[in-house]
Amino acid sequence: MKLIRFGAAGQEKPGVIIGEKRYDVSSIVSDFNEAFFEDNGLEKLKKALESNPALPEVGADVRLGSPVARPSKIICIGLNYVDHCHETGAPIPTEPIIFFKSTTSLCGPNDDLVIPKNSEKTDWEIELAFVVGKKASYVEEADALDYVAGYALLNDYSERAFQIEMGGQWAKGKGCDTFAPLGPFLATQDEIADVNNLPMWLTVNGKKFQNSNTSNLVFKIPFLVHYLSQFMTLLPGDIISTGTPPGVGLGIKPDPIYIKPGDVIELGMDGLGSSRQVAKAYSK
Amino acid sequence: MKLIRFGAAGQEKPGVIIGEKRYDVSSIVSDFNEAFFEDNGLEKLKKALESNPALPEVGADVRLGSPVARPSKIICIGLNYVDHCHETGAPIPTEPIIFFKSTTSLCGPNDDLVIPKNSEKTDWEIELAFVVGKKASYVEEADALDYVAGYALLNDYSERAFQIEMGGQWAKGKGCDTFAPLGPFLATQDEIADVNNLPMWLTVNGKKFQNSNTSNLVFKIPFLVHYLSQFMTLLPGDIISTGTPPGVGLGIKPDPIYIKPGDVIELGMDGLGSSRQVAKAYSK
Repeated sequence: MKLIRFGAAGQEKPGVIIGEKRYDVSSIVSDFNEAFFEDNGLEKLKKALESNPALPEVGADVRLGSPVARPSKIICIGLNYVDHCHETGAPIPTEPIIFFKSTTSLCGPNDDLVIPKNSEKTDWEIELAFVVGKKASYVEEADALDYVAGYALLNDYSERAFQIEMGGQWAKGKGCDTFAPLGPFLATQDEIADVNNLPMWLTVNGKKFQNSNTSNLVFKIPFLVHYLSQFMTLLPGDIISTGTPPGVGLGIKPDPIYIKPGDVIELGMDGLGSSRQVAKAYSK
Repeated sequence: MKLIRFGAAGQEKPGVIIGEKRYDVSSIVSDFNEAFFEDNGLEKLKKALESNPALPEVGADVRLGSPVARPSKIICIGLNYVDHCHETGAPIPTEPIIFFKSTTSLCGPNDDLVIPKNSEKTDWEIELAFVVGKKASYVEEADALDYVAGYALLNDYSERAFQIEMGGQWAKGKGCDTFAPLGPFLATQDEIADVNNLPMWLTVNGKKFQNSNTSNLVFKIPFLVHYLSQFMTLLPGDIISTGTPPGVGLGIKPDPIYIKPGDVIELGMDGLGSSRQVAKAYSK
C-alpha cells in the first residue's frame, strides 16, 4: 500500500494511492498515527481494501501532508553514505552518528520551505526514511524488519550555521519549522523490491546536486533498528531517516551554495515518488 | 497550583496537591497534555477549583507519573551553571548548548531508574525544568514568561559512554527509557516566589553530590524561551530543562563515580518537592 495524508495542515485525513489515483480512507481508519500502527492498522487496512469498498476520490490538487501524523520522535543518521565519505575524505564511521529533528519540523512533501529568520546557510539533504511499525526495544538485527512499517522520501533540511557554528550539538540547525517534508507517500515494505538499491536525486532550480543510490548506505535499515533500539524505545509511527549522499550545499567547492527565497528544490527516489519545495523567507 | 498525574504508568489521571493532600481532578480535565495547555486549561482549572468542588482524595501510596503527559519534545540546556564552569575551568558559554532527550525517556518522579544494557557510566543531573504554556515562535525575552506554564524538578540521567564516546552527538546517552523522571509536581509560576533563587540538592545513597542554587544559572528562563524559539516552535506542554550544577558522577576526582543497581538517588529543590529513584539493572 501507499499511504497518504491529505487536506489542510493540521486537519489531514488518511488516504491511499491505488494505481494513479488517490482515495480517502477516513471511513476505515482515523489517522496514520502511533495508535494506528500499534493496533496492527496496516494489516486491518489491507484487509478492508481487499473487499473493494467504495472510496471517495481525492483530487490531484488537494494538498498532501506528511504521510504519518506527528510521531514521538524523528531520529536521523549522520554520515551514512560510502560515496559521501569518499568525497569528503572522512573515514567510514564504525558506528552510526545519531541526532534528533524536532517533530515540529515535520510537514507535507510539497509545502513551502520557510527559511528561518537570520538564516544564511539553509541547506538540503535527500534521505531515505523509514517508519517504525511496532514498539522496539533491544531488537535483534535478524528480526528488525518486523518492526518497519514502510519507507518514505525525506528532505532533512539543515541550517549549517545553526547546526555547526553555535555550540557543538546539531539540534539548533535541524529542527526548524518546515525542515522535514516527508512523502509524498509511505510505501509499505511489499511495495519496494529492494530498498538497498533505490536511485535518488535532488535538484535546485533544475540543476542536479545529489545523485546516488541507497546501495551506498554504510549502515542499513535492519542494523539501524537494532542499534537505535539499544538506546531508547522506538514507538510505532516514529520516523528514522538514514542519512544523505554527497552533493549538499555545504560541500560544494570552492564555495558552498545555500538556499535563497524563490529557489525550487525537487527530489525523488525510485519507488517512493518525488517532492518539491519552494523556499520563502520567514514572515510573521 | 501544583499539578500531578497519578496512577499506573500509561494510565495516569490528572490531580492537584492542596495543602498536604492530593486530589483527583479527572472530573474537571482529561489530562495535562498539549491540548490542556493550549486551551487555556490552567486558568479554567483554577476557576473550577475556586468553587471548592468535592474531589476524591488520592492516597499517599498511589504512584505519581510525570506531571505532564508525553510532550512533543524535551529540550535540555548544556553547561548552564556558573559554578559548574568554575569547577571544570570551562569558559562560561556565550550562548546555550541545546540537545533533545527522547520523549520516551519521560517517567514518574519515583519510578525505578533502569540502567540500560551494556551501560557502565549511568550518571545523574539534577535540573530545574519548565513547561511551555502556549505555542512559542520568535518570542521576545520581555514576553517570555507569558509562555511558561510552570516549573518542575527533573533528573536528566545521562549514560556518559553512550553520550560522549560513541560518535559526538549526545542523543544516544540522554534518551534511554526512565532517564527523565519529572516531578513530583508541576508548580504554576505563582507558587514560586523567585525561580532564580531555588536551593537544590542531590544525594546518592544518602551522600550529597550536588548542592547549588538556580541563582547560578548562566542563561535564565526568559532568555531560554526567546533563544529556543528562534530555532523551532515550542508547543504547549513541551519540557525544557535548564542544565545541571556541579557534582555529577563524571566530574568526580580522581575517579568518576557511576550508578550501580541498588543505588538510591534522591533530589530536591525548594518549592518543587523531591523525588527518589532506585537503580536497577535492565531485565526483559
